[in-house]
Amino acid sequence: MNYCSHCGSARLVQKVPEGDNLPRIVCEDCHTIHYQNPKIITGCLPTWEDKILLCKRAIEPRYGLWTLPAGFMENNETVEQAAVRETWEEAKATLSPLSLYVVFSLPHISQVYMMFRAKLREPTFAPGTESLEVRLFSQDEIPWEQLAFFTIRRTLTLFFQDCQTGQFPVHVGDIIPPASPPPPHS
Amino acid sequence: MNYCSHCGSARLVQKVPEGDNLPRIVCEDCHTIHYQNPKIITGCLPTWEDKILLCKRAIEPRYGLWTLPAGFMENNETVEQAAVRETWEEAKATLSPLSLYVVFSLPHISQVYMMFRAKLREPTFAPGTESLEVRLFSQDEIPWEQLAFFTIRRTLTLFFQDCQTGQFPVHVGDIIPPASPPPPHS
Repeated sequence: MNYCSHCGSARLVQKVPEGDNLPRIVCEDCHTIHYQNPKIITGCLPTWEDKILLCKRAIEPRYGLWTLPAGFMENNETVEQAAVRETWEEAKATLSPLSLYVVFSLPHISQVYMMFRAKLREPTFAPGTESLEVRLFSQDEIPWEQLAFFTIRRTLTLFFQDCQTGQFPVHVGDIIPPASPPPPHS
Repeated sequence: MNYCSHCGSARLVQKVPEGDNLPRIVCEDCHTIHYQNPKIITGCLPTWEDKILLCKRAIEPRYGLWTLPAGFMENNETVEQAAVRETWEEAKATLSPLSLYVVFSLPHISQVYMMFRAKLREPTFAPGTESLEVRLFSQDEIPWEQLAFFTIRRTLTLFFQDCQTGQFPVHVGDIIPPASPPPPHS
């Protein structure tokens, strides 16, 4: 942010507004406070019998790697509508009722990741514009080394663990990258 | 948004960017696409024995009405950290481990509301700067007619229903205001 989106001024400063306790971007001319908040990424873990639908990404980041259908929630939709929309856009698949499954916070990138379990209505799917390929994978076919994101790996790992008990509680957790290793001795 | 926050231009238009399917605010000069996304409001339903902690709002909107401690999630924190922070800021209360309890989408105002159940660590609390008063209420003392938000009413209603069974599943739902009544006959 280089200019105030309200008045166009370039006189933006980082400061703690009166009555607040965090620094914000504040316009010195019109005094607008520009809040910045985390974004929600939502999507589905679509299943058909004992298989899971994955999409091969046709876009950056992680072009050519596999993911569950998911994306940024938009204004004026519900979380479930967003998850259904993303599944349609990326995999041209329609879903039975959704069950919330994971809520992961990624504080280092200010994202909250919400994934739902859902059965496909029918085993019909096709790549949308953001996918190169869409297919069903059984557990022993999952391309673990070619998954696009750690959130996807974590979601799939929890799912296969829960399949063993048949219980699928909502998992709430954080995904925080490991600290960098210490520098080698000089 | 009147000016591009990237280049300061006033030449902002609403249009569907290439490869997208929703209208966005786009700068005609520097071509920055200004995405807008839902915000997360998170907080707690703090309990002590059979009572619930509510805060009387010292700020608008809904000054003087009662609410559960909650507020906008900030960048670079987890959902749970945000809920704990809001409970401290508004009620100076500390919490035992949190359990996700409700996820409500409010698409008309592009908010997602996530509330956690949590026991108070000790029955110690006090109004923060955004509260006039903080106190514990038993079920028959809840000021139903003086609750600040419908989300709070819905959360408390679900909680007391679930208390009867002792089962507290995560509730996922939407809160959409009723359509305006038809105009009276003229």
